[in-house]
Amino acid sequence: MSQIYDRVALIGLGLIASSMYWACKRDGLVGEVTGYAKSTETRDTARRIGLCDRVCDTIEEAVKDADLVVLCVPVGVMGDVAAQIAPHLKAGATVSDVGSVKRFVIDVVTPQLPAEVHFVPAHPLAGTEHSGPESGFAELFDNRWCLLVTDDQTDRTAADTLKSFWIAMGSNVEEMDADHHDLVLSVTSHTPHLIAYTMVGVADDLRRVSESEVIKYSASGFRDFTRIAASDPTMWRDVFLSNKDATLEILGRFTEELFALQRAIRQGDGAHLHDYFTRTRAIRRGIIEAGQDTDAPDFGRGAS
Amino acid sequence: MSQIYDRVALIGLGLIASSMYWACKRDGLVGEVTGYAKSTETRDTARRIGLCDRVCDTIEEAVKDADLVVLCVPVGVMGDVAAQIAPHLKAGATVSDVGSVKRFVIDVVTPQLPAEVHFVPAHPLAGTEHSGPESGFAELFDNRWCLLVTDDQTDRTAADTLKSFWIAMGSNVEEMDADHHDLVLSVTSHTPHLIAYTMVGVADDLRRVSESEVIKYSASGFRDFTRIAASDPTMWRDVFLSNKDATLEILGRFTEELFALQRAIRQGDGAHLHDYFTRTRAIRRGIIEAGQDTDAPDFGRGAS
Repeated sequence: MSQIYDRVALIGLGLIASSMYWACKRDGLVGEVTGYAKSTETRDTARRIGLCDRVCDTIEEAVKDADLVVLCVPVGVMGDVAAQIAPHLKAGATVSDVGSVKRFVIDVVTPQLPAEVHFVPAHPLAGTEHSGPESGFAELFDNRWCLLVTDDQTDRTAADTLKSFWIAMGSNVEEMDADHHDLVLSVTSHTPHLIAYTMVGVADDLRRVSESEVIKYSASGFRDFTRIAASDPTMWRDVFLSNKDATLEILGRFTEELFALQRAIRQGDGAHLHDYFTRTRAIRRGIIEAGQDTDAPDFGRGAS
Repeated sequence: MSQIYDRVALIGLGLIASSMYWACKRDGLVGEVTGYAKSTETRDTARRIGLCDRVCDTIEEAVKDADLVVLCVPVGVMGDVAAQIAPHLKAGATVSDVGSVKRFVIDVVTPQLPAEVHFVPAHPLAGTEHSGPESGFAELFDNRWCLLVTDDQTDRTAADTLKSFWIAMGSNVEEMDADHHDLVLSVTSHTPHLIAYTMVGVADDLRRVSESEVIKYSASGFRDFTRIAASDPTMWRDVFLSNKDATLEILGRFTEELFALQRAIRQGDGAHLHDYFTRTRAIRRGIIEAGQDTDAPDFGRGAS
């Protein structure tokens, strides 16, 4: 594939940034990729494993002359990082991000950026429960969705180039507005994560069921929750605080439904339960047909 | 491996029974395995795919002369099935089951069985979201736990033989009492399933987020819930109705914790969220160390 940007700067070198770097290298998409991380340890690790063509010791150096700067930092510090890079950005550069929440990021980043820079927020729907510079791999985005947040103020050339970049890294790309993004993601990702964290916390608290039993007998159901609940705590704290309204709305609906099922159990209403469980089964079929998962029976046994 | 039983009867030919059959055949554990299913269609399918050495058209024929009869039917019909087979059991035979709830099964099955038959309830902690006679595979139980429910009334010879049978099919075996089993499973399996069903139901109801979007953007978090929520509706209805007390207790604790996290989100208490998410991460590490899952980063990408 041909080169899309001369120079890309990755700010924050965790799972997403490191996977972006390896995906860029796989396909020769960028002339030079610079990288910066706040922690010396992360920068040392990046240098040791060859992550980024050049790891910079200052954020100014990393973004200097970059055609694209991607903020790969927790949502809670996006505004501060945008303020730090703003004076050093090349005129006409594109700034993007990979945050899981979009309205909040737009609200904190946009006021920091100079007028001659194009901000095109993005959210690759890909991840693992691992984090850090050593967790990335080139295939992370293959056949996953990347959502670009655009509106009638968006610079189309900047957006189209960013779109071709994500497609070249393996993603399918769609555009949507920020509020709709935040609601959809609250349903498909944020609230499920909160619920998984909660269930794992309940198990941890329950003294009559010793920890070793919870762990030993985790195969059916709980194991998948622990996988979700092992995700990066800082990232998820920021997601819930910055997508508060949608999360609280979906949580409210969740609690309502859960109480209805709880009442059905208490009253022995088997028909209600059976109908409900039959309806949810159809959604799974849709996901397999949409190619977002396989039909292989791996439940309870991991990726092996 | 050497033969453990001369004749085993599998009653109900779904995922567990079909996997048991293939595991028996893999290792030559049984002289002859007979099978029975209530539905003609299931019996025809079993015959077509070579499931069981002999598929019987009546339950009497299937259990006749069997050394071990395994009830692989939904928990809700265990009592009826036990009553049907009781007059036809060989003296000294062992009856077992594979139900996900144990106190209820013991309460409904035990009174039906003749005194000269040994009942040793069991629960293999293995499964997929698939069901039916074609969903089984010989490796389902490999390195999974199978819990035998025993007490001081248990016939030790019957229990030890059944234990060696499950070990030969690939399982690790532990014994525990029925009530403790039901509480542990409520935490590690039953309540997580109910929660997953609920979350998928919420997504299905939410009209502003179209079904196709929920399906398209399911990669992070929600996808794992849909996998769980695709499990057999009849089986799960019976689990919740027959393990009502433990499920309602764990659900109560879950709701309590969820409300505390919800309040932290509403109040912007990031420290509470971060602490909670850090604590749950450690449990995941324990599960990987216990060998019940792999560390491979498959989250969001399926078994492929």
